[in-house]
Amino acid sequence: MDEPKAAPEWRISQWFNTTEPLTIETLRGRAIVACAFQMLCPGCVDKAIPQMKAVHELFGKQNVTVVGLHTVFEHHEAMTPTSLKAFIHEYRITFPVGVDASGDDSHPAPQTMRLYQMRGTPTIFLIDKKGLLQGQIFGHISDLQLGAEIMALIKED
Amino acid sequence: MDEPKAAPEWRISQWFNTTEPLTIETLRGRAIVACAFQMLCPGCVDKAIPQMKAVHELFGKQNVTVVGLHTVFEHHEAMTPTSLKAFIHEYRITFPVGVDASGDDSHPAPQTMRLYQMRGTPTIFLIDKKGLLQGQIFGHISDLQLGAEIMALIKED
Amino acid sequence: MDEPKAAPEWRISQWFNTTEPLTIETLRGRAIVACAFQMLCPGCVDKAIPQMKAVHELFGKQNVTVVGLHTVFEHHEAMTPTSLKAFIHEYRITFPVGVDASGDDSHPAPQTMRLYQMRGTPTIFLIDKKGLLQGQIFGHISDLQLGAEIMALIKED
Amino acid sequence: MDEPKAAPEWRISQWFNTTEPLTIETLRGRAIVACAFQMLCPGCVDKAIPQMKAVHELFGKQNVTVVGLHTVFEHHEAMTPTSLKAFIHEYRITFPVGVDASGDDSHPAPQTMRLYQMRGTPTIFLIDKKGLLQGQIFGHISDLQLGAEIMALIKED
Repeated sequence: MDEPKAAPEWRISQWFNTTEPLTIETLRGRAIVACAFQMLCPGCVDKAIPQMKAVHELFGKQNVTVVGLHTVFEHHEAMTPTSLKAFIHEYRITFPVGVDASGDDSHPAPQTMRLYQMRGTPTIFLIDKKGLLQGQIFGHISDLQLGAEIMALIKED
Repeated sequence: MDEPKAAPEWRISQWFNTTEPLTIETLRGRAIVACAFQMLCPGCVDKAIPQMKAVHELFGKQNVTVVGLHTVFEHHEAMTPTSLKAFIHEYRITFPVGVDASGDDSHPAPQTMRLYQMRGTPTIFLIDKKGLLQGQIFGHISDLQLGAEIMALIKED
Repeated sequence: MDEPKAAPEWRISQWFNTTEPLTIETLRGRAIVACAFQMLCPGCVDKAIPQMKAVHELFGKQNVTVVGLHTVFEHHEAMTPTSLKAFIHEYRITFPVGVDASGDDSHPAPQTMRLYQMRGTPTIFLIDKKGLLQGQIFGHISDLQLGAEIMALIKED
Repeated sequence: MDEPKAAPEWRISQWFNTTEPLTIETLRGRAIVACAFQMLCPGCVDKAIPQMKAVHELFGKQNVTVVGLHTVFEHHEAMTPTSLKAFIHEYRITFPVGVDASGDDSHPAPQTMRLYQMRGTPTIFLIDKKGLLQGQIFGHISDLQLGAEIMALIKED
């Protein structure tokens, strides 16, 4: 990613764990770690969600916002907002989670998934204080590397 | 459990991964390892389900039947059979899974849960070749101990 | 191993954690789980030793004896009995550990290693109550399977 | 640590994995992650050494030097340089490791241990490009936090 571009605004139909909708615009000045996941994706549940919880706990008070994006592109009827709500409760997720807005017949993938050209879940996004997309990782990133990437966002002028 | 008693028949409203309903009666002569779980119970997803998959792989050809029981006693609307079907697919569960039959207004817990006086999920059941309930473990049992318990069932006359 | 054979007596130059030397002969009537290891073998330290400690804790009171064999076939000067003694202390090993007797110029491998035709460390041995060698596993065996193998030894007449 | 102070020079009697002795002075301009360990300390072997290997692999080409310090304060006869050499080989450690110089009768702790007032092993040291000791952690630090701390050293002017 030679020239980081502005991170597109998420398209969210419903938020959990926040009274106000979050936007990249209003988070300007804070580093953002976002994670697109599906509640029935084993790699998300096993690795990405625990990692995001740890990031939230460690960096949440250091000018870093953690955001979950529930980006459902399969088994839609099994991963409704009702099910997601129970998942958030049972897995004790306390950071904000937005439901990626549904696609339509011509573009069935969720809208944010399409905007970011995601390849699947989990996908982790690193967005700097200016709203630039500094990184987009499909799959797994080690804690050691993620910690370093987040500090790079924090230290950036 | 000084005097093992006959394991009560499960009360199942729907089966997955089997064309025929399973009963303790018809499994007579085989050892049974059953696991009551909920698809949104972290301890089930993290430990009990992988353990049951390993048991199925290791002992499935040695006269041992593994059975999952989807015993939903909370967040019912989030863990419907539709969601369970996707869960089974995503977590690559190949052993039979039965949906514990719903309770009613006077006894809201699922029927099998009530019959076995389960305290929650996960609960693992060890049933011998004669249909006797030799063990009922709420929570976690180590692989080392579970392997031993299963072999005790296999070796029993 | 179609016809299990008598387990050869270990050749031990020094014992730790026992006042009396152990022999397969005098352990007749008990199941034996022995583990040949090297204190600087990562696979031994990481997996086999913790597994043997768990076996000792779970089955030690059920007619099962756990024995460690320090079978040094490389870096001899780095894994002397003096170093082994500190290793046993630091890793809180409480089961008996014997030092496999040194080879000689014509057969440099330790004597027990040679008798059992071991391929390396860790190697786990399952010896039944009659002193027959029922299993010899080079490398890793899962806890689930090991638990089952041990119970098979316990249940044997 | 409000006012970071200059990291004292290590007192090393022997080096492994480097042809030249390393000093904090000559490493000026590079960030340093040092780890004091003992080869028979379970917490070092289980966590700190694998973590240092991961740091070396991830950051070794990014102006970060990883250094091991073998700081033996117990079981001296079991953890000689001869044993350490085999340990380094078996655990595939490729970063430089220095042997902390022995103390004397009046101060039996190794000299570097005494200079840094270490409480035990493992202890991890974060030294910035100017040679200032920015952090000294006794025990465990999560990968997430360590990654962040290292990036803070890298980003520092």
